[in-house]
Amino acid sequence: MTGKLIGVGLGPGDPELMTLKAHRLITGAAVVAYPALENGESFARAIAAAAIPATATELIIRIPMTVARAPAQAAYDRGAADIAAQLEAGRDVLVLCEGDPFFYGSFMYLFSRLADSYETEIIPGVTSVTSCAAVAKRPLTARNEVLSIIPGPLESDDMRAKIEAAGAVAIMKVGRHIGRIRALLSDMGLAESATYVARVSLPAQQVLPLERAPDPAPYFSMILITKGQDPWLS
Amino acid sequence: MTGKLIGVGLGPGDPELMTLKAHRLITGAAVVAYPALENGESFARAIAAAAIPATATELIIRIPMTVARAPAQAAYDRGAADIAAQLEAGRDVLVLCEGDPFFYGSFMYLFSRLADSYETEIIPGVTSVTSCAAVAKRPLTARNEVLSIIPGPLESDDMRAKIEAAGAVAIMKVGRHIGRIRALLSDMGLAESATYVARVSLPAQQVLPLERAPDPAPYFSMILITKGQDPWLS
Repeated sequence: MTGKLIGVGLGPGDPELMTLKAHRLITGAAVVAYPALENGESFARAIAAAAIPATATELIIRIPMTVARAPAQAAYDRGAADIAAQLEAGRDVLVLCEGDPFFYGSFMYLFSRLADSYETEIIPGVTSVTSCAAVAKRPLTARNEVLSIIPGPLESDDMRAKIEAAGAVAIMKVGRHIGRIRALLSDMGLAESATYVARVSLPAQQVLPLERAPDPAPYFSMILITKGQDPWLS
Repeated sequence: MTGKLIGVGLGPGDPELMTLKAHRLITGAAVVAYPALENGESFARAIAAAAIPATATELIIRIPMTVARAPAQAAYDRGAADIAAQLEAGRDVLVLCEGDPFFYGSFMYLFSRLADSYETEIIPGVTSVTSCAAVAKRPLTARNEVLSIIPGPLESDDMRAKIEAAGAVAIMKVGRHIGRIRALLSDMGLAESATYVARVSLPAQQVLPLERAPDPAPYFSMILITKGQDPWLS
């Protein structure tokens, strides 16, 4: 019997925003795996830290921060091989994922390498999108409104078209793109009503009108936009 | 001291997909409120049932299922008044919300009536969107892909334009609109690769290729679409 690959969503950062199921699985885990920076620092591990048993084997997948994709993909190759060795030995492997495993997560690079060969399970997690709306006290969407989630690195003309086509908008991973995005939203008449949220649910969380947001912004930052009439006021 | 209005996301249906924070707050609650059908049936209450203390006061907000909006809005007026009476008496009120309170939820109708007068807190929850991706074993989005979430009742021409503008798409609340949506997706060449998920995370959960989905579908059903190349396979 080979083991099962389990992708576990941990939510946006506050360990209390982990699900009961994620918590139960982690506290009983024999093997956990997680992505980390080259120095070993891991946001996912930090969220789950208090729940990881001292006896658990930890597989650290060190991801080089390069613009080129090949070094990161080679790191996922090695990570998948390490995980496969545990699965072959009959042990389940929990992959710790910030947010939700299938929502802009690196888990999919492991999933694509292993899902054809092993049993898998995905535990969804609270995403940063609804977490940011919660702390901004801004309902995201109502009724028949379309919500579009747009990655910050998207090129400006494309981003403009996507925002024009959407109802409510969440722009993720704003980071160093904030100046360009703020100028675009100003030009579209949407900057004034936009809210900026950084490091949601963590002690360093910031919630600001977009106009007062820092430049550059941290990688884990988001801009929330609702267009026209506030949709929930009727 | 008046009490605090707390909107608590409960996740998609499986009580284990509730967050640790939601669970802690509910088990300590003096007053819980929730929307229910006119016969008193409440999906939100069912998710939280095992955690609600026997001693808690329960405020049931019975929402008439009419096409006209006025009767439902009158019900929210009465619900908000019942909640305000508890808040005025110094008691916190937890409003139980399936999914996430600010993601297509009715909580915003209470929030809009009470947030100017009382302290509020929102506890985000796991949404049905990432939950459906998890059970469909379909990564939603990667890298710089745009995800659009589209309500099923949206009229077909508008829906077509929104889908054309998007990268990945989740169509929510498919229900009785499934025939029309399936025909639209067929016409767009997207039906074959689409996945249908109903009652995600509940015992009656169904995951099917869209072509084999029932018509009508239940209200809590979703269609997931990724366009072009699978985005996670590189």
